[in-house]
Amino acid sequence: MAKNLTSRSEDYSKWYNELVIKADLAENSGVRGCMVIKPYGFAIWEKMQAELDRMFKETGHQNAYFPLFIPKSYFSKEASHVDGFAKECAVVTHYRLKNDENGNGIVVDPDAKLEEELIVRPTSETIIWDTYRKWIQSYRDLPILVNQWANVVRWEMRTRLFLRTAEFLWQEGHTAHATEAEAIAEAEQMMHVYADFVENYMAVPVIKGLKSESERFAGALETYCIEALMQDGKALQAGTSHFLGQNFAKAFDVKFADKEGKLDYVWATSWGVSTRLMGALIMTHSDDNGLVLPPNLAPDQVVIVPIYRNEEQLAAASEVANKLMAELRSKGIRVKFDNRDTHKPGWKFNEYELKGVPVRIAIGPKDVENGTVEIARRDTLSKELIAVEDASAYISNLMDEIQKNLYTKAVSFREENTTTVSSYDEFKEVLEEKGGFISAHWDGTSETEERIKKETKATIRCIPLDDDNAPGVCMVTGKPSARKVLFAKAY
Amino acid sequence: MAKNLTSRSEDYSKWYNELVIKADLAENSGVRGCMVIKPYGFAIWEKMQAELDRMFKETGHQNAYFPLFIPKSYFSKEASHVDGFAKECAVVTHYRLKNDENGNGIVVDPDAKLEEELIVRPTSETIIWDTYRKWIQSYRDLPILVNQWANVVRWEMRTRLFLRTAEFLWQEGHTAHATEAEAIAEAEQMMHVYADFVENYMAVPVIKGLKSESERFAGALETYCIEALMQDGKALQAGTSHFLGQNFAKAFDVKFADKEGKLDYVWATSWGVSTRLMGALIMTHSDDNGLVLPPNLAPDQVVIVPIYRNEEQLAAASEVANKLMAELRSKGIRVKFDNRDTHKPGWKFNEYELKGVPVRIAIGPKDVENGTVEIARRDTLSKELIAVEDASAYISNLMDEIQKNLYTKAVSFREENTTTVSSYDEFKEVLEEKGGFISAHWDGTSETEERIKKETKATIRCIPLDDDNAPGVCMVTGKPSARKVLFAKAY
Repeated sequence: MAKNLTSRSEDYSKWYNELVIKADLAENSGVRGCMVIKPYGFAIWEKMQAELDRMFKETGHQNAYFPLFIPKSYFSKEASHVDGFAKECAVVTHYRLKNDENGNGIVVDPDAKLEEELIVRPTSETIIWDTYRKWIQSYRDLPILVNQWANVVRWEMRTRLFLRTAEFLWQEGHTAHATEAEAIAEAEQMMHVYADFVENYMAVPVIKGLKSESERFAGALETYCIEALMQDGKALQAGTSHFLGQNFAKAFDVKFADKEGKLDYVWATSWGVSTRLMGALIMTHSDDNGLVLPPNLAPDQVVIVPIYRNEEQLAAASEVANKLMAELRSKGIRVKFDNRDTHKPGWKFNEYELKGVPVRIAIGPKDVENGTVEIARRDTLSKELIAVEDASAYISNLMDEIQKNLYTKAVSFREENTTTVSSYDEFKEVLEEKGGFISAHWDGTSETEERIKKETKATIRCIPLDDDNAPGVCMVTGKPSARKVLFAKAY
Repeated sequence: MAKNLTSRSEDYSKWYNELVIKADLAENSGVRGCMVIKPYGFAIWEKMQAELDRMFKETGHQNAYFPLFIPKSYFSKEASHVDGFAKECAVVTHYRLKNDENGNGIVVDPDAKLEEELIVRPTSETIIWDTYRKWIQSYRDLPILVNQWANVVRWEMRTRLFLRTAEFLWQEGHTAHATEAEAIAEAEQMMHVYADFVENYMAVPVIKGLKSESERFAGALETYCIEALMQDGKALQAGTSHFLGQNFAKAFDVKFADKEGKLDYVWATSWGVSTRLMGALIMTHSDDNGLVLPPNLAPDQVVIVPIYRNEEQLAAASEVANKLMAELRSKGIRVKFDNRDTHKPGWKFNEYELKGVPVRIAIGPKDVENGTVEIARRDTLSKELIAVEDASAYISNLMDEIQKNLYTKAVSFREENTTTVSSYDEFKEVLEEKGGFISAHWDGTSETEERIKKETKATIRCIPLDDDNAPGVCMVTGKPSARKVLFAKAY
């Protein structure tokens, strides 16, 4: 059963990298910082996409598609936005290659230089708001509730599969509203939609909150976020939703006439989650044996492996398997029968454990004889013999149980790894020795936040929304603090 | 009912451009040649994607995702491939912007020049075959049946919404096989899958065939295609499937060991359809009143418009509408009730006609009184009064009838506009005066093909697969011809 997987306790980071490769989720490509998402990893992402897309549509959003390229001049229109993204942009400068006359092979044709450089979108606020100017004249054109599934590029220097890649896949919602209150309500709604998805499909508990000013999206007045805690005690930002005020409307001159005919700038939000969620999913549940997937997102929820020494035994096991498969499928359960004769059962068990299939069923000659099947849970690694006539009901129930168990385990882990501290020394000690979320008072200034970050590498993950918010004094400066905030080292 | 739409007979090309804009399908963006696909247009594309994706999965394919960027050196490895695409490539040369020291705003940072330029993928054979080298060692790793939904960029000089844009959305299948026969079978299978989709969902009849050598994909040994005929008598290539032989395996050194341990290069196919299909859909069925959509792809298949003068009448119409909606939805029909009080019924009728909704139901006070509804078909523009209790069965039946009618009409049009000619003079005359597909003998040489293209602008659309293939003599040179081929002017 050797998976040659580094254990989490030995080296968490190495464990993660190996797991992503060995479970066939993704791999590095020949292009610096860009990943290949392999079919198994992509199948999980597709499940995520399908659920999120459904949730977006249920909340009134429609999909659309905007250009990959953004003219440099658009990009420069919103000052803080360009500051935030200029340092990590892929820039298209030419539109043709040619055969070098001096025999140096294929070269960029210097005659095909663009008049204005194009930026490969790192996010689409600018090109979208340039478009919205044409779509919006009056209050009747509002709200615009649009989402886009797309690839984006941010030229990150240090990359890691799913967590930080130069190109990644994401969705970006971009909405336009007549009032400030409506835009804020939208930004909050999408934070809740994200939390709902991450908790109920990914089985990853999250803290909802606001970013501090210095951690806000470039161009936002307020950034709502959901923060999750990984098994190594580091936090991961799982999704953000931004209230953009009228910043982009002003930069792109997007005004609307209200019912009285008065002109005003349009209010905006944007919100996104990305293939980074794959990293959160992997790191929250998986163990030293490999990936652990919540049933709600597993491409195969159940796999059946026949155990046999001859054709007759295979035929008998297949008969049981086919009947059980039909029953499971009628309950909407995704089940696969792996009767390949090119691999031994032990190899298959190992493979499906590594790939996190929630439930594995083995059917051997003895099972056929006794009318049982062996049902193994990936989350607990426990096995049980179940009468074949009870199996489909049992498994159907297991789907819910495993989904809940993963979530509950993750909540317990987070509770155990969330510490409230009252002094900066205690803060540093907890951060060093235990990690996790640390709840502490902070004086609300960027200076103090920056000092803490510099001295400890911990950042303010969020100002929680549903926490008690009793005032106190800042653990660093002793100045008044309106409420405790949540710190952690983060991905 | 004025839609201010240029008529097809007046200016087909203008009619198309106006229709795409007015029906809210797509528009030009501020980025040269790149379009914005608007929510209504994207909703149709999503329906296409969903059906195609299902068909790909049913034929054993899985989705994956490969990098947007292709290093220039990869791109250059397959000689005919780079020849085909080098002239229309977006090239990334830098990875950072900065504030100009001389106050010229945001500029490209010259210090951030890439060592090797990156090409924005125009198609992904090269990056994918570089990856497949790592995935394939033995026959056990084959076949690889992978598809990718992605954006691609080809720097076209003359662009038209959906038909030819610098960036477009598509899917590209890339498969790897142990034998030549298997790869050819795959390429043929995908041509049939495409034909099935285009005919049965888009209601667009197609001719299946092979491309002549000069029209083949850059790097292919054989290109299978499906060709459709638009209302202006021009052909449109709706999908292609390529047998790539061992060209890419050789360029990227991808070998596999067969059962006897003998090494050989892997056999390849690739196949794709794009947002260009939206152009084919629009041009095949639409009329001077606007878009006409086949029910199988219409985002809204039925729209109900209440006609009323007061709240009481609205309430009565709504009651009928809600009951009918529930019945239609239980039959899986996508129905919308447009009870907006911001627009008059006449405006709504006009709007849904322009947007091609297959069936429109009007419910007025008289209908409520008489227990009827007025049902209007978009394809025939005919109206009927139907008893409300019969309405849902009638409409359910209409869905099939409209779908079939659109297809049948398109087949008739194509038949009327396909001409067999025996001389080059007749060929030129038919091409000039009637257009459409022209079936004629050709001597099989690129020289003759080139001459015909130069003199008439007609190209060989395909060498049909399911036609009679009696030999004859070339209409131009009088040399022997193995069979007739299909010519047309094309998009």
